Amino acid sequence: MTTITLTLDEIYQLAFDCLQQNGADEENAAAVAQVMTCAERDGSHSHGLFRLPAYVASLRSGKVRGDARPLLREITPSLLKLHGGNGYAPLAHQTAIPALAAAAQKNGVAVLAITHVHHMAALWHEVEMLAEQGLAAFACTTYMPSVAPAGARSKFFGTNPIAFAWPRPDATPLVFDMATAAKAMGEVQIAARAQEPLPAGVGLDKNGAETTDAAAIVDGGVLLPFGGYKGSAISLMVELLTAGLLHENFSYEAKEKDNGDGGPPQGGEFILALSPAIISENDWQTHCQQFFDRLSALPGVRLPGSRRHQNRKTVEIRQIDAGQVEKIRALMTSEQAD
Amino acid sequence: MTTITLTLDEIYQLAFDCLQQNGADEENAAAVAQVMTCAERDGSHSHGLFRLPAYVASLRSGKVRGDARPLLREITPSLLKLHGGNGYAPLAHQTAIPALAAAAQKNGVAVLAITHVHHMAALWHEVEMLAEQGLAAFACTTYMPSVAPAGARSKFFGTNPIAFAWPRPDATPLVFDMATAAKAMGEVQIAARAQEPLPAGVGLDKNGAETTDAAAIVDGGVLLPFGGYKGSAISLMVELLTAGLLHENFSYEAKEKDNGDGGPPQGGEFILALSPAIISENDWQTHCQQFFDRLSALPGVRLPGSRRHQNRKTVEIRQIDAGQVEKIRALMTSEQAD
Repeated sequence: MTTITLTLDEIYQLAFDCLQQNGADEENAAAVAQVMTCAERDGSHSHGLFRLPAYVASLRSGKVRGDARPLLREITPSLLKLHGGNGYAPLAHQTAIPALAAAAQKNGVAVLAITHVHHMAALWHEVEMLAEQGLAAFACTTYMPSVAPAGARSKFFGTNPIAFAWPRPDATPLVFDMATAAKAMGEVQIAARAQEPLPAGVGLDKNGAETTDAAAIVDGGVLLPFGGYKGSAISLMVELLTAGLLHENFSYEAKEKDNGDGGPPQGGEFILALSPAIISENDWQTHCQQFFDRLSALPGVRLPGSRRHQNRKTVEIRQIDAGQVEKIRALMTSEQAD
Repeated sequence: MTTITLTLDEIYQLAFDCLQQNGADEENAAAVAQVMTCAERDGSHSHGLFRLPAYVASLRSGKVRGDARPLLREITPSLLKLHGGNGYAPLAHQTAIPALAAAAQKNGVAVLAITHVHHMAALWHEVEMLAEQGLAAFACTTYMPSVAPAGARSKFFGTNPIAFAWPRPDATPLVFDMATAAKAMGEVQIAARAQEPLPAGVGLDKNGAETTDAAAIVDGGVLLPFGGYKGSAISLMVELLTAGLLHENFSYEAKEKDNGDGGPPQGGEFILALSPAIISENDWQTHCQQFFDRLSALPGVRLPGSRRHQNRKTVEIRQIDAGQVEKIRALMTSEQAD
């Protein structure tokens, strides 16, 4: 892969310009470009500029509104709802996360129910925003079907990611963000190309039989939830928390309603924030630090999120796939489809 | 196994009498006996009378107070805390769950933080109590270390169960309740006795090597989290929600402070209740029923909790291991240890 060197500012500007030239207004372009830049900063390339063509496709098709203005309402002191106006998730988060943090800091617990957004970014971004305010946070969302529930042979659940962050006073938060699928389809495609076998439990072939052959999964097969029936139960919980609780699209509905432009479908996001200070009524920081010290001292253990936070420390330049940058520049000069 | 036939009333009475004769007062004996009877009713024998000897051991050792009176406090309108008075969890639930349900029905979301209890029952009981009030519920708790975090080779996490329930208007709730360990040690012991190989990922042998030999795990080895590093992240979240958030014992602390009597250690429990009616502001019931219908129509799928609820429908008698009943009767006549 040929790469070119870009500063984080250049990455941001590239994303911003491309989004704006394709119909996003300044606020929406800035919010998406910022989240994308954070992904590149942390080494999460799969959530960085790589996603820009799909964002552009959904702006051009008119599925996503580039001029969306999220509307935030306080339903109760501990329950906020945000209607995303059919825009992208990042502006929704910018609008609502500070209010969610304030509600949790006052009430000990608060929920943000986001509807009518198109979410194609990582979830660690929003849970980290809350952890930086001294809060524990959990978030989940659905996507279009790609995973067979335990026992079934056909796609029904989305990859249904869950993310969790825990604040640490003098350190980066502990953060995990993971699909409830055994693997991302992208990873399976890479294994297929390399002709490397997969561990058992990743997917089924087109006949519904378990296989460790990545190519057989790619060729009309289906992914499985991580961890068998237990991971399947968690994926089911994500469907219910995101779509059932919020009256938004279940994964199968998102697919049925989507226009197939390759961009993110409409959906909801459930975010929970908890205040350890209020709930523990005690010196939770020292207590948790002892726990992290004990856990980190075990040989072989790496705290979730630490690799990303390590990447974050490096200087302000990043190596970006040259082909990707070329593709993005082409999106900025080509005529927009109607 | 020789079994004897008992009615559910007889099972309740046996548990109640045994607990009362070993130092539990009427309220605590009744609460524990009721939960145990529900487990036998649903076919969850591992959480039924089977646990009675361990309860008795912890009463006799004085670790658990048989006369505990839980103390409930409202910290904020959506945050309740309950100090269990070092008694068993069931009386704590009886005391606090109705107030938690009322808080969630009013605020959309509410948390119950339980501290200073000894929890050795299934978690489905408390989340089902909430689902019966039209609420979605999540609960988790820690236990003493038996699981190696992903990458590590020694016990650090408890089996750390999580439970979730979703209400269904004209049906039993959807409920799952599962350890975040790949398997319970009891299941591994059964496989060792039967000389049956385990799937990969269940445990390590005493040298820290992965093995599918159940006997090698039992003989000084250690369990692994379900689903590799993803399940390990969830088990870590359970430690933080239960012990970090509540200022209660992490699994390793529970072990260090426990007197080794074989009964349940002191710990906390995190319970979250959510109101689909308030959060969805819509006809969530019809929407979710369509989802359940689609999911259930997939060949091979069984909704979590359905087997227990099926068992529940059968007549009022149960087959109980005769040896177990004999053991319990012996606990009722034997002199109490000091």
